[in-house]
This record gives sequence, structure tokens and C-alpha cells, in this order.
Amino acid sequence: MQRLPRYYRCLRNMIGEDILRVSSEELAAQMGLSAAVVRQDFRCLGGMGQQGYGYNVKDLYTRVGELLGVATNYQMILVCSSDYDAAFAGHPLFLCRGTRLRAVFDLRAQSESTCGELPLYPIERLEAYCSENHPRIAALAVSYRDAPSIAARLEACGIDAIWNLSGARLQTSHAIVRDLNLLDSLLELTCLLHSAEDPSSD
Amino acid sequence: MQRLPRYYRCLRNMIGEDILRVSSEELAAQMGLSAAVVRQDFRCLGGMGQQGYGYNVKDLYTRVGELLGVATNYQMILVCSSDYDAAFAGHPLFLCRGTRLRAVFDLRAQSESTCGELPLYPIERLEAYCSENHPRIAALAVSYRDAPSIAARLEACGIDAIWNLSGARLQTSHAIVRDLNLLDSLLELTCLLHSAEDPSSD
Repeated sequence: MQRLPRYYRCLRNMIGEDILRVSSEELAAQMGLSAAVVRQDFRCLGGMGQQGYGYNVKDLYTRVGELLGVATNYQMILVCSSDYDAAFAGHPLFLCRGTRLRAVFDLRAQSESTCGELPLYPIERLEAYCSENHPRIAALAVSYRDAPSIAARLEACGIDAIWNLSGARLQTSHAIVRDLNLLDSLLELTCLLHSAEDPSSD
Repeated sequence: MQRLPRYYRCLRNMIGEDILRVSSEELAAQMGLSAAVVRQDFRCLGGMGQQGYGYNVKDLYTRVGELLGVATNYQMILVCSSDYDAAFAGHPLFLCRGTRLRAVFDLRAQSESTCGELPLYPIERLEAYCSENHPRIAALAVSYRDAPSIAARLEACGIDAIWNLSGARLQTSHAIVRDLNLLDSLLELTCLLHSAEDPSSD
């Protein structure tokens, strides 16, 4: 269900604020949904609410986390080709549940070094690393030109899911792909701003 | 139109590969759309294709860029509260057309310094800076707890568009908001992978 990650984040924030129970109306307000949709969503997850009490936040958080597979701690690698994207490895999001970033591969690297606390390898080491460590997920932060060939190598190495930050449109044989493009998101904002100022242009 | 940023990126990539003209079928394949949808989209933009020729890539790129407001070069500021998010200021995307990142405000900063080539200010300087420089867009990369109050200050300073990287749900009075959440995107991927492995959980 598309909304699970947002529920998960919303519930984690509530736990951080020591909120122990929540009504479908409160959760709906946080999520920008109607209470009916929230109730319907959680009925599908096994009906965790109690009439007149609402939902137990921690139970709900645990259940949503199970569905998201956060306890699985998928092993992840990052393939990048710039200092910015290597620095991405230090992002706090990789400390969150669900994935463990284990190694960085840099297309420019000539020899092994480190990236923060992680090992950093030349891309030539990809196949050997994967056959030893069996990572399941790869974050792909290379140029759109390099992305298709690297994605094919990742699939051949047994990677099952690619978090595609490259901007390229990937055709995979079996791997699940999820695209995230920062520039698209920023352009969507400027586009909204621009069309609000100059409605004739849209 | 929601697809404009992706068209823009796709066309820029083609220009980088010296592709001067493109058929609606080729563009559709790149975009993951049907050729009919592509033709319909560009008819709405003023019908730039020619029967038997296709589209002139540079003309189309220019037209899409106009609609996105890329020539406007909106002034942008970044408000952040961690080293990672400050490093974000160096992301190549801010070199792209459409916005110019001008200054960084760090909630933790006690005094003025620099962040790469940009000035970095304590958040207390926000109001003075904005009344002098009139930035239109703010990237908001603070914690979800700090985000609502900072967003309110940004609006009071005349910011018209907030690129919300905080994970908080923002209620603004007039500013346009576009949310981008890296963790949601990554969790969507692990959720897909997890449910592919254990269909009973979904």
C-alpha cells in the first residue's frame, strides 16, 4: 500500500512526542487524509483500532514496520560517481530501520579507501563483493549515461531492488526499481510558482 | 502539467547526446508513455511537431523550459540544521537552470561563515536577509519538529514557495509547498521488495 511509508513516519514522530494513542481523525489530519480512509486502511491491515479508544500508536507502528519489512534490514550498497553522492552515504536516513548501507562503489575510485565508516571500492570490485556479501538493494547515484550499464551489472550480481537516483529510465529484467529525482521535484515547485504568476503560460 | 520536468530532463539528455530531432514514439519510449499521450501533451503546448519530421529537440526544450520558468532564475535559500543538509547546498542540481541558491541558514550556527561558495548565516539573520534580497524559494531541510515554525517565518519573510525536505506536513497561508522525502522513497522500495517475497503480508 502506497501510504505505508508515510504512516510509518507519522507514527514514529508521534512516538517521539510520547503520544501513546491516536484517533483515526487525528491520524487523518496528520496525513492529510479523511478519517474514513485511515479506518479503511487499518481495517485492511487487520483492524487494529478499538471503538472509543482509537489506535495504540506503538502497536500500529510495529505492524506497519512489519509490512514494510523494516526488521529485515536489507543489505544495501551505494554506487556513485561524484563526491556529493558519496557524501550521501552519510545521510541519517541510512541509519533508519529497514536497510543497512554496507559499502560504497565509486566509478572514479582507483583503489580501496573509506567513505565515513564505510568501505569505498572501485567499481571493478562490484562482482566479487556481491558474490561474497549478497546485498539485496543498490542505490544508484551515477549519471544517466552510466546508469543503464551499471544497473545491468547490478542485476547480474543478484541485486533485487534498485533505488534509482540517476534520472535515467531503467529497463530491468527482474529487479524492482524505484525512481527518485531531486531535480524533477525542484522543477515541479518552480513550475507551480511560475504558472501561479503567469497563468497564460500553462 | 505534472510531466513537464521529466520532459525537460529527457530533452536535455537528448541535447547532450546531439539528438536534434525526435519522433513522438521515441520520446514516448524514453518517458515510459504512449506516443498518443506525448502528441496530446505537445498539442496542448502549441503543437510543435511536424508530420513526418517529429519534434525539433532544442525548440521543444526551450518551450518546456519557458513553461517551467527556468529563465526566471528564482533566488533560493536553504534552511538546514545538520552538516549533511548543509552539504546539500553543494549539490549539482542547484547549478541547474531555474533556481539560484544564494544563501544557507543553519539553525545551529552562532555566527556568519561560509558553506562552499555561499554565505552561511545563523537563523536570526533570516528576516534581515530576506527583506534585503527578496528570495522567492526556500529549501527546508530541518527536523519535522522545527519545520512548521520555520515555515511560518519563511512565509512572513515573503517566501512564496517551500521545497519541503523535512518530512513534516506543512500548513501554509499562501506559500506553495512541494514535499520530497528521501526516507519515504527508500521505504517504498523496501516495501515492494518485502511484499514480493512475502505476499501474505500485504
